[in-house]
Amino acid sequence: MTVPGLLTFGETLAAFGTAEGKLRHASTVDVGLAGSESTVAIGVARLGVEAAWAGRVGADEPGALVLARLREEGVDTSAAVTDHEAPTGLALKDFRSRDSPRVAYYRHGSAGSRLCPEDVCEDRIAAAGVLHLTGITPALSGTAAKAVLAAVEVANDEDVPVSFDLGYRQALWSPQDARETLLDLVTRADIVFARDDEARLLGFDGTPEELASSLSSLGPEEVVVRLGPRGAVAELHGSRYDVPSYPIRAIDSDGADDAFVAGYLADFLTEAPPERRVRTAAACRALALSVEGDWEGLPDREELTQLPRPR
Amino acid sequence: MTVPGLLTFGETLAAFGTAEGKLRHASTVDVGLAGSESTVAIGVARLGVEAAWAGRVGADEPGALVLARLREEGVDTSAAVTDHEAPTGLALKDFRSRDSPRVAYYRHGSAGSRLCPEDVCEDRIAAAGVLHLTGITPALSGTAAKAVLAAVEVANDEDVPVSFDLGYRQALWSPQDARETLLDLVTRADIVFARDDEARLLGFDGTPEELASSLSSLGPEEVVVRLGPRGAVAELHGSRYDVPSYPIRAIDSDGADDAFVAGYLADFLTEAPPERRVRTAAACRALALSVEGDWEGLPDREELTQLPRPR
Amino acid sequence: MTVPGLLTFGETLAAFGTAEGKLRHASTVDVGLAGSESTVAIGVARLGVEAAWAGRVGADEPGALVLARLREEGVDTSAAVTDHEAPTGLALKDFRSRDSPRVAYYRHGSAGSRLCPEDVCEDRIAAAGVLHLTGITPALSGTAAKAVLAAVEVANDEDVPVSFDLGYRQALWSPQDARETLLDLVTRADIVFARDDEARLLGFDGTPEELASSLSSLGPEEVVVRLGPRGAVAELHGSRYDVPSYPIRAIDSDGADDAFVAGYLADFLTEAPPERRVRTAAACRALALSVEGDWEGLPDREELTQLPRPR
Amino acid sequence: MTVPGLLTFGETLAAFGTAEGKLRHASTVDVGLAGSESTVAIGVARLGVEAAWAGRVGADEPGALVLARLREEGVDTSAAVTDHEAPTGLALKDFRSRDSPRVAYYRHGSAGSRLCPEDVCEDRIAAAGVLHLTGITPALSGTAAKAVLAAVEVANDEDVPVSFDLGYRQALWSPQDARETLLDLVTRADIVFARDDEARLLGFDGTPEELASSLSSLGPEEVVVRLGPRGAVAELHGSRYDVPSYPIRAIDSDGADDAFVAGYLADFLTEAPPERRVRTAAACRALALSVEGDWEGLPDREELTQLPRPR
Amino acid sequence: MTVPGLLTFGETLAAFGTAEGKLRHASTVDVGLAGSESTVAIGVARLGVEAAWAGRVGADEPGALVLARLREEGVDTSAAVTDHEAPTGLALKDFRSRDSPRVAYYRHGSAGSRLCPEDVCEDRIAAAGVLHLTGITPALSGTAAKAVLAAVEVANDEDVPVSFDLGYRQALWSPQDARETLLDLVTRADIVFARDDEARLLGFDGTPEELASSLSSLGPEEVVVRLGPRGAVAELHGSRYDVPSYPIRAIDSDGADDAFVAGYLADFLTEAPPERRVRTAAACRALALSVEGDWEGLPDREELTQLPRPR
Amino acid sequence: MTVPGLLTFGETLAAFGTAEGKLRHASTVDVGLAGSESTVAIGVARLGVEAAWAGRVGADEPGALVLARLREEGVDTSAAVTDHEAPTGLALKDFRSRDSPRVAYYRHGSAGSRLCPEDVCEDRIAAAGVLHLTGITPALSGTAAKAVLAAVEVANDEDVPVSFDLGYRQALWSPQDARETLLDLVTRADIVFARDDEARLLGFDGTPEELASSLSSLGPEEVVVRLGPRGAVAELHGSRYDVPSYPIRAIDSDGADDAFVAGYLADFLTEAPPERRVRTAAACRALALSVEGDWEGLPDREELTQLPRPR
Repeated sequence: MTVPGLLTFGETLAAFGTAEGKLRHASTVDVGLAGSESTVAIGVARLGVEAAWAGRVGADEPGALVLARLREEGVDTSAAVTDHEAPTGLALKDFRSRDSPRVAYYRHGSAGSRLCPEDVCEDRIAAAGVLHLTGITPALSGTAAKAVLAAVEVANDEDVPVSFDLGYRQALWSPQDARETLLDLVTRADIVFARDDEARLLGFDGTPEELASSLSSLGPEEVVVRLGPRGAVAELHGSRYDVPSYPIRAIDSDGADDAFVAGYLADFLTEAPPERRVRTAAACRALALSVEGDWEGLPDREELTQLPRPR
Repeated sequence: MTVPGLLTFGETLAAFGTAEGKLRHASTVDVGLAGSESTVAIGVARLGVEAAWAGRVGADEPGALVLARLREEGVDTSAAVTDHEAPTGLALKDFRSRDSPRVAYYRHGSAGSRLCPEDVCEDRIAAAGVLHLTGITPALSGTAAKAVLAAVEVANDEDVPVSFDLGYRQALWSPQDARETLLDLVTRADIVFARDDEARLLGFDGTPEELASSLSSLGPEEVVVRLGPRGAVAELHGSRYDVPSYPIRAIDSDGADDAFVAGYLADFLTEAPPERRVRTAAACRALALSVEGDWEGLPDREELTQLPRPR
Repeated sequence: MTVPGLLTFGETLAAFGTAEGKLRHASTVDVGLAGSESTVAIGVARLGVEAAWAGRVGADEPGALVLARLREEGVDTSAAVTDHEAPTGLALKDFRSRDSPRVAYYRHGSAGSRLCPEDVCEDRIAAAGVLHLTGITPALSGTAAKAVLAAVEVANDEDVPVSFDLGYRQALWSPQDARETLLDLVTRADIVFARDDEARLLGFDGTPEELASSLSSLGPEEVVVRLGPRGAVAELHGSRYDVPSYPIRAIDSDGADDAFVAGYLADFLTEAPPERRVRTAAACRALALSVEGDWEGLPDREELTQLPRPR
Repeated sequence: MTVPGLLTFGETLAAFGTAEGKLRHASTVDVGLAGSESTVAIGVARLGVEAAWAGRVGADEPGALVLARLREEGVDTSAAVTDHEAPTGLALKDFRSRDSPRVAYYRHGSAGSRLCPEDVCEDRIAAAGVLHLTGITPALSGTAAKAVLAAVEVANDEDVPVSFDLGYRQALWSPQDARETLLDLVTRADIVFARDDEARLLGFDGTPEELASSLSSLGPEEVVVRLGPRGAVAELHGSRYDVPSYPIRAIDSDGADDAFVAGYLADFLTEAPPERRVRTAAACRALALSVEGDWEGLPDREELTQLPRPR
Repeated sequence: MTVPGLLTFGETLAAFGTAEGKLRHASTVDVGLAGSESTVAIGVARLGVEAAWAGRVGADEPGALVLARLREEGVDTSAAVTDHEAPTGLALKDFRSRDSPRVAYYRHGSAGSRLCPEDVCEDRIAAAGVLHLTGITPALSGTAAKAVLAAVEVANDEDVPVSFDLGYRQALWSPQDARETLLDLVTRADIVFARDDEARLLGFDGTPEELASSLSSLGPEEVVVRLGPRGAVAELHGSRYDVPSYPIRAIDSDGADDAFVAGYLADFLTEAPPERRVRTAAACRALALSVEGDWEGLPDREELTQLPRPR
Repeated sequence: MTVPGLLTFGETLAAFGTAEGKLRHASTVDVGLAGSESTVAIGVARLGVEAAWAGRVGADEPGALVLARLREEGVDTSAAVTDHEAPTGLALKDFRSRDSPRVAYYRHGSAGSRLCPEDVCEDRIAAAGVLHLTGITPALSGTAAKAVLAAVEVANDEDVPVSFDLGYRQALWSPQDARETLLDLVTRADIVFARDDEARLLGFDGTPEELASSLSSLGPEEVVVRLGPRGAVAELHGSRYDVPSYPIRAIDSDGADDAFVAGYLADFLTEAPPERRVRTAAACRALALSVEGDWEGLPDREELTQLPRPR
């Protein structure tokens, strides 16, 4: 009765951060977690669709924290691997000034970056409704890059749709290093999410609509090009779709893109029609923007129904 | 009029931790700092004697935090080095259960571990009343080990007394690796602080008094062997001194050894007689034990006068 | 490879409470959950054995809170039922004075008390390693009492061992009303946990050892009679076993009995020998006593190994 | 010298709530109280006019909390009744998303809902300057409805003005059930506060001004029809009065209507002219809107003088 | 039906303080109030006897805080005076180390110290069951001293019993200055509470029993000499009474003496026999000792019944 | 290599305050410090220029707090004087309603107000790059006024530039009392900061530009007239300079003027050209406005580079 769900993997970090102001002035910080893939998994689970997160955590308290918080949100963590050799990575967030957050990462040599092809569980992938990956993971380490490729190959073989969010992170690799890997993964994916600057990094040019067409021409049947506050354009199965914009006061942009992906994939998994997928995606993004934190604002189905009409 | 003060260097980390309970159950954690040498510097400063801490921090918020908190305590940080290539290390503390704290370190490749001989400021050492070092620093990296040796050589040349706390940390190096380095430093030091198990690690044997004598025979004129809750024995300039024990309820043992060292060195710098040095040291340890946290319980002179008489 | 796990059901409430002092003086209260069966499930899960909790929660935030916190602890909640007609019950805890907690319940007509035989999932019971129930549930409502009986019948038919903790609650029913129901359930159970006053309520008399024998004579092969701070006696498969006592400072007695049950059942499920079951049970109780809160102190396997030897 | 004051009764609940976000993500919640009538009483007391609240609370901590917080605000609680049979009701508030609060009530069978005619103290009513009641109370229970009627009859007999706020709550009764009771109370009241939708529920139609006239035609000499953010219209002793609107940033609309009523009645009691009553009422509403919480923003006289001029 | 209650006056300050540790390390402090007389008033009110506090507060927020917190505790503040010329005094509390609190006062020229004979309300005194004063008030200022004397004269004239707690405060006046004033007040009082060192300050000598007799010989029919942790002795109407000691863990000694006075006077007002007065007084002291804070631990009647038997 | 830095003196108070709402509703308050001169010193230090603060604090915890927080910010406090006779002053801040803060001062007879000419350290002044003073200090006491004059005389003799911020405070003295003192100080200063109403208080008239010219005609070569939200005008060395305005959302205006001064003086000390001084000053003001608190928002050099372009 339940539809096959989302399977995703990547690195999730234990996160410490101020609610406002610089760390140096703080006497306490909030505890949470950070990771694009796990944010997507939480978002899908909140929308009532099964979601599983795989990845490595250390055999330590930050690792226990990551697993506990994901389970709390209803995300299946039974495919996660505990690494007894390396610690769980950390993220440290504070604010230079109001509305200008910054994050420092302590992930060098972390358990999460030691992901390797052996961690890829073929049965899990074969049973999934969609495999979601990001361009962050191949940038973490050589073995992590191999794990991503191995997973995509299994999914391709098993006819499991692959969703890929380019997620280019300047701090992790150079545009030159990233280009080939990201291009390869776009080619093998069925659903692709890219920011317009990421599409240009791959060598494409033109309007957002042209960027979406260019990415589609590489193979993926569903492509969304995100433009930040200016919205998004979607080319799905050869047709262009308007991505609506919701009149909501933006509070915190962290995690908004992951909310968009979560909304899209939850509707993809329940086979909603394309125009509803993009609407749900945009609505999730709007609601995530309206609440502080990476994942706190991810909505459930009931909240979606209470949004004002898009503009 | 002010006496020449303490100069110390080593790694100080930004620290996050629960007040009780496991991290996984925490929604916020406290922010502080951790580092044996800086704890000693704070302790000396609180006793009204000048203290300076040198070491490397990253050009980041945890580094700004370390410097701000030390300055707040009146410790001179003007000799500290800001490293633009590496991040400040972190310490993560929580409690398995009541009274059983544990600490995880994120210091691999940290700014603090990149200390090198160039960071050793000869003028500063020459002007100091005592140079205090620990066996933790040479375990951090090859350059850090060289920096320690270079500093000791400058101090020896300039007739500045060297204080050395063995501070063997099992997580950082093996007993085999540690032995030679620690033995060498004991030989070059004027004041040595060792736990009884550290004395045995160097190859000595016998009662605590015999251990103190053995260490003294290597050169240092002042040796204290600490025995945890069972007290300490001191051999100073060839004589044995009783280290008194204070009837105080122990709350948190972290930092108690550093408080002992701080009390001893503050009195050494003000040329108090040997029996007062060990009394002040023991009193500082007792007061530090009676307050939660590594350095919060370090006393000022007025508090010392309010302690009940030792047993 | 994983052993069949624990299945339990009962009412779990969203809990609000002060850490110390009266509610009237509080400006904030802590948020948690309360329920004997779910505390046992958390305890079993922490010991590395699968545990599932079933029961009803309302379609409201307190219900979402209950499910989220249980999942966070690794307890399977997929058999829980969401009741759209009734709210999740609440518990309100504060302290008259230090060390004298009191709890008020808002559970009349609650979702949890509306448990009914239809909620009993036969397949789940058949697949479980043990079915654990308490005498609290039949006191909640007529349908809840029927649900307990129905579950026991399924377990008996399927040869699934039944664990029963008498858990007599004066506020819920009179001794007269309770006696018959509890006696019937003891007779159908394989493992029975009772306080000495509960054994006497059933009409038995004599020393704790005699009470254990009397309960055993009703059918259950494993009987533990708990005596609060004075320890416990066990009659297992016709032999008497000493229940050791651990020298630990008691902080909070709430949940200590549930910790005992959790320790016992985790070892029962992994087929540890009887003397180890009672030792693990006593150790879990000791560790739960040493930490504030109902379930925060429930240990994992590693913590068990760090306990001092029993007296 | 002091004017006869306000007497009001109804149910006041102990309230727990998040400051933002869902309960399920909270580790602590704030403690307060909730109840339309007691909010009005606090508002009147803050404006320097005597105010007394009557009603039932349980013999429990939530009841002690309700009485303590009201006394703290200078409200006389000496006429309140402690019910030893039933608990004080609770309110649980959280936020679906920013600016969308929701409240769940645990008031079924509560002490507050067991209000009965015997609780009505004739001497108190006879000595009051105004008796203020709401349409919430008759919806709580049959005895509460009778208590309201009994009180109104005493007030009518003693020539004590009756103020009535329709306060229709959909969760408590149907429009059909409510209509007759509310109509009866409007007829017996001297001052009536209604939202435009409440006036329509009674069967009236037309513009806000027409609704006010229709209500006036039932008997009350002073009628205010509130229109939420669009302001209010008043028909007082046959004349129409403009209700000014203040240019203030709205933060929290809970309690804003009660602030309006408090401002109106405080000025009524001190015999301010009609145009000042509506101005004070509107000013109190504006200030309550500008502060988070039901009653925290209720102003004192000095704050009223500091408001910018109305538009 | 209710007995005439307590009337007391003196200075009450707004209090800020850490829960543990020094102010310099605190990022937040707790807000409360401090004042011996108001602590007694709260204690009496909690025991179900009417209590009123008079005194001066400034027309400022600290003054509003003092009045609000007293009203919250059911203390009648209608006789308090608001002083528009001077600010409410402050108390600042922190801890040198665990269990060693210290308090700094900002009360020079405060509203509370400007108490004057005109503030003494004769009707109030005439209607009281007992007038309670302390030796702190005459030390605050010349007008405050006159106000105390004037009040005692009214009480003496009206046959209202006077209770007097010597409350000598070294920081406010010298023993020489205090002696005459305190002696005069003891002579005019009916009930006297003194510490043994205060009795000696008046010039008396001998055992605690002899000190009590000496004080009695000055006029008061009921005298209690308090000995801190060593208990107390009472000479009431010519007979000696044992003051029992309760086996309770002491947490915070601030306010314990005021709790004793409150217990004694509440029972005096309800005309309990002498042996019960001293028992209630001792029980209140024990319960106050067992809770942190000046007044938080003051018990109600129900709590008194739950104390273990005295030793 | 480092440029001669700022030397300033005045009174700095320990500050307690709510983050929002009235004190009477608060259960905790935040701890900080308040003082115009120390805020300027922090601002200059954050911009990487040496800054020292002198002034008197009591030998108490509030004094220890003031010194610790200043040192934490890198401000040199070695010239501060500890007064063993008088307490450190306090500031108490809360909010009448959102955006309407108010501050009460407890500084009468405080250590800070007992500043006297003996506290003026001639060597320190001679070595400074600029001496910064405000019109608040001469209003504190006769000795403080003398200390200001003495310091200005030393600076004038030693050719150290004097910066003077009129800082007229109505609560401290009357316009009549202030005029002569302020006029005298303007005449002796090199750099003057005045609000337009302060310039008028000195007897000048006209447009802001005319006010700046009038002040310049008294002697100072650099004059800035601040107009609050309407910006500022500067007359520097005979030329007029535009003071840019930055498009930033204002959160808290406390400390904004001090931020302006800090930015100006930091650039003055590093000999930046006039147009850059006013730009940095305006940028610091904008950033301070965008963060809550007096000094929390003072920027470092890196933050300045991230401001959007001025309008």
